Amino acid sequence: MSKLSIRPQRPGDRLAVLMPGLGAVATTAIAGVEAVKRKLGQPIGSLTQLGYLLEEDGSFGPSIQKVVPMPQLDELVFGGWDPIADNVYQAARRAKVLDHHLVDQLEEPLSAVKPMKAVFDKSWVRRLDGPNVKTGSKKAMAEALCEDIRGFLQKNGCARGVMVWTGSTEVYAEVGPAHQSLKAFEAALEKSDPTIAPSMIYAYAALKCGLAYLNGAPNLSADIPALRELAEREGLPTGGKDFKTGQTLMKTTLAPMLHARLLGLEGWFSTNILGNRDGEVLDDKDSFKTKEVSKLGVLDAILDAEKYPELYQDIDHKVTIHYYPPRGDNKEGWDAIDIKGWLGYGMAIKVNFQCRDSILAAPLVLDLALLGDLAHRAGEKGPQEWLSFFFKSPVTVPGRRAVMDLFRQQRNVHQQLRRYAEAIAASAAGAKVG
Amino acid sequence: MSKLSIRPQRPGDRLAVLMPGLGAVATTAIAGVEAVKRKLGQPIGSLTQLGYLLEEDGSFGPSIQKVVPMPQLDELVFGGWDPIADNVYQAARRAKVLDHHLVDQLEEPLSAVKPMKAVFDKSWVRRLDGPNVKTGSKKAMAEALCEDIRGFLQKNGCARGVMVWTGSTEVYAEVGPAHQSLKAFEAALEKSDPTIAPSMIYAYAALKCGLAYLNGAPNLSADIPALRELAEREGLPTGGKDFKTGQTLMKTTLAPMLHARLLGLEGWFSTNILGNRDGEVLDDKDSFKTKEVSKLGVLDAILDAEKYPELYQDIDHKVTIHYYPPRGDNKEGWDAIDIKGWLGYGMAIKVNFQCRDSILAAPLVLDLALLGDLAHRAGEKGPQEWLSFFFKSPVTVPGRRAVMDLFRQQRNVHQQLRRYAEAIAASAAGAKVG
Amino acid sequence: MSKLSIRPQRPGDRLAVLMPGLGAVATTAIAGVEAVKRKLGQPIGSLTQLGYLLEEDGSFGPSIQKVVPMPQLDELVFGGWDPIADNVYQAARRAKVLDHHLVDQLEEPLSAVKPMKAVFDKSWVRRLDGPNVKTGSKKAMAEALCEDIRGFLQKNGCARGVMVWTGSTEVYAEVGPAHQSLKAFEAALEKSDPTIAPSMIYAYAALKCGLAYLNGAPNLSADIPALRELAEREGLPTGGKDFKTGQTLMKTTLAPMLHARLLGLEGWFSTNILGNRDGEVLDDKDSFKTKEVSKLGVLDAILDAEKYPELYQDIDHKVTIHYYPPRGDNKEGWDAIDIKGWLGYGMAIKVNFQCRDSILAAPLVLDLALLGDLAHRAGEKGPQEWLSFFFKSPVTVPGRRAVMDLFRQQRNVHQQLRRYAEAIAASAAGAKVG
Amino acid sequence: MSKLSIRPQRPGDRLAVLMPGLGAVATTAIAGVEAVKRKLGQPIGSLTQLGYLLEEDGSFGPSIQKVVPMPQLDELVFGGWDPIADNVYQAARRAKVLDHHLVDQLEEPLSAVKPMKAVFDKSWVRRLDGPNVKTGSKKAMAEALCEDIRGFLQKNGCARGVMVWTGSTEVYAEVGPAHQSLKAFEAALEKSDPTIAPSMIYAYAALKCGLAYLNGAPNLSADIPALRELAEREGLPTGGKDFKTGQTLMKTTLAPMLHARLLGLEGWFSTNILGNRDGEVLDDKDSFKTKEVSKLGVLDAILDAEKYPELYQDIDHKVTIHYYPPRGDNKEGWDAIDIKGWLGYGMAIKVNFQCRDSILAAPLVLDLALLGDLAHRAGEKGPQEWLSFFFKSPVTVPGRRAVMDLFRQQRNVHQQLRRYAEAIAASAAGAKVG
Repeated sequence: MSKLSIRPQRPGDRLAVLMPGLGAVATTAIAGVEAVKRKLGQPIGSLTQLGYLLEEDGSFGPSIQKVVPMPQLDELVFGGWDPIADNVYQAARRAKVLDHHLVDQLEEPLSAVKPMKAVFDKSWVRRLDGPNVKTGSKKAMAEALCEDIRGFLQKNGCARGVMVWTGSTEVYAEVGPAHQSLKAFEAALEKSDPTIAPSMIYAYAALKCGLAYLNGAPNLSADIPALRELAEREGLPTGGKDFKTGQTLMKTTLAPMLHARLLGLEGWFSTNILGNRDGEVLDDKDSFKTKEVSKLGVLDAILDAEKYPELYQDIDHKVTIHYYPPRGDNKEGWDAIDIKGWLGYGMAIKVNFQCRDSILAAPLVLDLALLGDLAHRAGEKGPQEWLSFFFKSPVTVPGRRAVMDLFRQQRNVHQQLRRYAEAIAASAAGAKVG
Repeated sequence: MSKLSIRPQRPGDRLAVLMPGLGAVATTAIAGVEAVKRKLGQPIGSLTQLGYLLEEDGSFGPSIQKVVPMPQLDELVFGGWDPIADNVYQAARRAKVLDHHLVDQLEEPLSAVKPMKAVFDKSWVRRLDGPNVKTGSKKAMAEALCEDIRGFLQKNGCARGVMVWTGSTEVYAEVGPAHQSLKAFEAALEKSDPTIAPSMIYAYAALKCGLAYLNGAPNLSADIPALRELAEREGLPTGGKDFKTGQTLMKTTLAPMLHARLLGLEGWFSTNILGNRDGEVLDDKDSFKTKEVSKLGVLDAILDAEKYPELYQDIDHKVTIHYYPPRGDNKEGWDAIDIKGWLGYGMAIKVNFQCRDSILAAPLVLDLALLGDLAHRAGEKGPQEWLSFFFKSPVTVPGRRAVMDLFRQQRNVHQQLRRYAEAIAASAAGAKVG
Repeated sequence: MSKLSIRPQRPGDRLAVLMPGLGAVATTAIAGVEAVKRKLGQPIGSLTQLGYLLEEDGSFGPSIQKVVPMPQLDELVFGGWDPIADNVYQAARRAKVLDHHLVDQLEEPLSAVKPMKAVFDKSWVRRLDGPNVKTGSKKAMAEALCEDIRGFLQKNGCARGVMVWTGSTEVYAEVGPAHQSLKAFEAALEKSDPTIAPSMIYAYAALKCGLAYLNGAPNLSADIPALRELAEREGLPTGGKDFKTGQTLMKTTLAPMLHARLLGLEGWFSTNILGNRDGEVLDDKDSFKTKEVSKLGVLDAILDAEKYPELYQDIDHKVTIHYYPPRGDNKEGWDAIDIKGWLGYGMAIKVNFQCRDSILAAPLVLDLALLGDLAHRAGEKGPQEWLSFFFKSPVTVPGRRAVMDLFRQQRNVHQQLRRYAEAIAASAAGAKVG
Repeated sequence: MSKLSIRPQRPGDRLAVLMPGLGAVATTAIAGVEAVKRKLGQPIGSLTQLGYLLEEDGSFGPSIQKVVPMPQLDELVFGGWDPIADNVYQAARRAKVLDHHLVDQLEEPLSAVKPMKAVFDKSWVRRLDGPNVKTGSKKAMAEALCEDIRGFLQKNGCARGVMVWTGSTEVYAEVGPAHQSLKAFEAALEKSDPTIAPSMIYAYAALKCGLAYLNGAPNLSADIPALRELAEREGLPTGGKDFKTGQTLMKTTLAPMLHARLLGLEGWFSTNILGNRDGEVLDDKDSFKTKEVSKLGVLDAILDAEKYPELYQDIDHKVTIHYYPPRGDNKEGWDAIDIKGWLGYGMAIKVNFQCRDSILAAPLVLDLALLGDLAHRAGEKGPQEWLSFFFKSPVTVPGRRAVMDLFRQQRNVHQQLRRYAEAIAASAAGAKVG
């Protein structure tokens, strides 16, 4: 392994965290960071803030913060784009995730974050709309994003930046001719090719301007050859796709148990109800398809029917999502899992997960911003497989199989952090010796 | 590490599997093995029969059977003790775990297994009774067990034997003076000291006669200084306690997820209903206490409130078990889990596990017999921590903390198997070279 | 009220019970009746077999059988039509609802029931197919059904007959021009008009040949002006639609509780998974629409948002059905019910109903055959609203509102039975006096 | 029926509502009434405030308020006793049932309600304590209560009063010698007989001072011969026992469905978790026994195993309650219901009721105060069976069987209201004529 060198985070270095989509997830993340800074809450769910290093022997060692220095919360500067012009205070109140009482205490810092004009296209996200949008050719919009980014960094005195997609799920799309090479992509941008999705334009702009790009939705976005080429060329890390929050988090926890214990599976029926903007978007069957593909893959990858045909072949796996307004931002999953044991005798597990979408996603935004930046500081480029821990549908280097099992993902993220910790320690020791 | 040498399993070497308690679990295990031998079913849930080796990098390698030779199913000879004189065919029908249709096809081999007279004491298991029991002093009963064991091995031409406790949960007891040394224990046996439980007499007899001892119930049994001394002296491995089957299996799966994701826990309420003999026994509050202690420890061990006070201190953890006859051998757990995320916002997980007690336990009996024997062949002695994967309340070498997290346990069991596989491969290579 | 006179059921009078669709429901009903005749089981779930008369004061009086004589089980003769030629023994085994062990004991009587050639049209039930079908124009098929009916009655020496639809859910249809009058209908039959569904042809044939017609599916079937006209003209009772079995049974039980206690409702999300032929048929979105309409109406009717706007206006009510093969004939519903109490505070009810479709429907087939025949004997004609107790989507006399509340339906069915019992008693008293 | 005459409620007539126990239930009731008066909320769950008259034919007629005049909310004056001296504003905040935001808007009226000194005895409610208590002999305390009552009525200019027990569940007790006659009771009071529970002293004082007495807990209280004698003598109505709120409300809804449909029952397992003061009290096994007896009776009464032995004999019915602090005032029930259908085939219903204890009980307090007063105005005396609708364990006239079925109870309460409405209408008509 070539010698690993990590750019230091010097006190006062500010990191710009730029998010396309300032809806429930982004505003909960921003408000949460502001609340933690004021000691109004704990950053629960965040590996970078609360975690300890998982050692090779399975024990937990030092605090991650201590051995892998990353920007402090007050060194983060948040910004973003949204088709609705509300500032983050207004958007957080509208999202109804956090208590008004809490949000009101944060009115000042939240009001200061105002969305830049979004690249938005109703043909890609059919159930939304808004006036705060850019116009012009796709190329022009990409350039406008680049200007937004550069302006933001400069205005806020940020040493570095990272982009985390917190926008909606776009309609289902597959990789097409316009996505095959950077050249084709840039030509397509110029012609405003309809197969170029907004999320691709954001990813393109991020990578053009030196930002790592992390994708919290199942959209193709940076996961196309053209943008892999760009990331490679610019030496920038990418990560995705789709925050692993509710039901898939549960699924990638329970399936490894069945697999560890050699229990068979006959079927897994998953239904989800949610009432937020995300639910409304996913009520559109083409957006749902994007999500469904993201959600369905996990069982096959974990259970490996080829190796265990008597246990896992012909599993009936269904996933459905329903928009149900009474649920609000709370999300509820119900899983009916039909397993089989000794001699094929059937048993059942039913799981009702009454979770909160944005509450589970917000700490992932923070972790991905910091870890994406860390990868950047370490000179990594292209898909960061070690970040799979945070994603429903992890992107890999082409030709490699994604790890879906939550606990293997956990070991991978910690293994990488140990590598970084060692490199940092070695460099510190070297510095002292020198 | 000293060079590991493993006694080979030669074709035809027969292994005696002796079980105190020929109730639902034992009869399901025996009937299952007979069914698998006749291709009437698959040994689902059994690591030794269906598993592949988990490699260090998280991938799965060769079949365990291939790289760690163990006795084949037709090299196993089952026997046991029970206060009820029914043979295993009759007992299996009475247990109503397996379909009568299947059990009837196995009438011949199952009828041949007849329980030896049990060491039984109603003051230790209050809800059971039966006429097929030994009498005399505790010492005399221990000697009678030894004779049973030797006679069984000889009659069945067995090269080796292993004992797996499949009997009931005894009333709660703590380590007392009679358990502190082998000398004290043997003196107490002679005086029929009331603090010597039947399960201790079985464990003593097993270890005296050269059998590894594995404990499927939460009873103290071999987990006392006196019997650790005996195991050490005789060079015999022990394992326990309490088969990890339904709710605790689930708990040690879900708690690691919370911990991996730094999600907090406010409370975990677990209730169980079951209608078999086990349920009846546990309806007695003193037997329940033994079980409760076994079940309550797991969360603290996994979550480590000392390290994560903001997440895990002051968890309300309750476990209840209720005897509910309509459930039969099926066991049903309901868990209400109150978690907290970002800024302390609460969420809930409800799990309804409709499982089958004996169906989940039977493959563990088989695995523990084979792996206990393997440890014996490898010259291990005392508590086998790597077998924690199979137990609710793993016994450790005194002073060490038990690993409760199912996935850490999984890695440990596979790591040991890899060690054995390497030793066997090395020895085979050596033999060829020689 | 005109004097009620009821044709007596004389000992030995045989009743033909003819069913279009000899699938899981019909075969379970037939096998069950045969099993009860042989004392191999109890007719649980059947009002006519086990019920007592609910008196006006809420107490239960004499056995219904005693005061309202109906044919005995051995006076019933079962027959039917199906596109698959299997006899009822074969079909019952294929349906996998009842244990093979039980079905095999009934092989003789069940094998004797062979399906007549069905009127079947894949454009109305897209997921099914079969070779045992009639051909020719719709008119010719209607006439062939009439011949089947007359032949069956004669061959089996039946005094009377009744038809109960146990076939599949057809694709959604609304009342059209061909359904507006008997004349238009008969003209359309002649032209094989595509808006004439198979279930209408059966209903037409039944009513033409003097059979009461009861509809166990949500299909329009007899619920069109043309066939109401025919029922009226022929003096025949009709009943429908859609057996009330699992989730709707539950819904029409719980909603009256909310209403009785003035608890508000914000939303009700219902999902169903089932794996039988019915599930497969309902996986087709047009068949599902027919079912959905049948299932959605119940809440509005019970809760009456107009009268209680603060409690029940703007309820989010969703119903989904998913084909999930592991479930087999077992059906599983999950309901998430969001209610509100004092000052609008929210509460939730989650119901997981693990039921068996055909086990719940079979006793309704028997009850509807006997009570449809009873209505016929009593000279009733047209929609029998008092039978609403058995239906998801009760058909009323045009212009009247259906009663959906299970307990109001229960009182209505018993009230009618009391009327019949009184008429029979009066007539018996008259006979004695005479 | 003798002619029914009802004392009119004249505008401005104030009704005192006196409650022993100003905990979560009472404070939620009082705060709710104050909120409704200020249009800050709706009195959801209250029959008297939102209900329409259920007519004999099952339809709903006029608003109950319109045809049966009762005091308006601003004609109610609340008071009570509690061993803790907090005023109702403080107690409501402590109870954490209602949002602080709402409670704070009601600070003025709630602070004005201060608890009078309670009759309290730790041997009857072991888990509570408090300094705001009366001392002296039981007779002296009874007299002090009478003075409290008279003083309250006078001070607040109340025309009438009613007492509703909103205190804790006392330890289990059976009717003993001291309860057999009023004479024995008064003698026992004088001797401070330990079998006289505090709740009996309150009931005694209420009836002595001309107040109707309604009992929201399962305590014996007024349900003893001595106090029936007193109620009879004083011409006062009584009602009880135990508000029917969560799980029993559900049970008396579902059991009638099974019974209506002749579905069998094998077992019903109910568990409850709650974290409020009530949960803490019920964690004491003797208080729990009182509750358990109250909860267990309902199934037998509804299902009538004698009449339907094939369906309902030998039901396994278990009820457990667990104190689980994370739940707070929210109460959660989980029911596992094992039913059987056609030929005995088993099915299961699981109900998870996530309710709020005080939110469900508060409207019952209001309804019982108004309806208890109405019965008083109508000259009723002794147990009011028509109020069973509100109680888990309805008290009947000795020798009569309680109606448990929620829907029969509903008809009974409305039937009585119709009687009252008719009497009032007749009297108004008479007045006009006159």
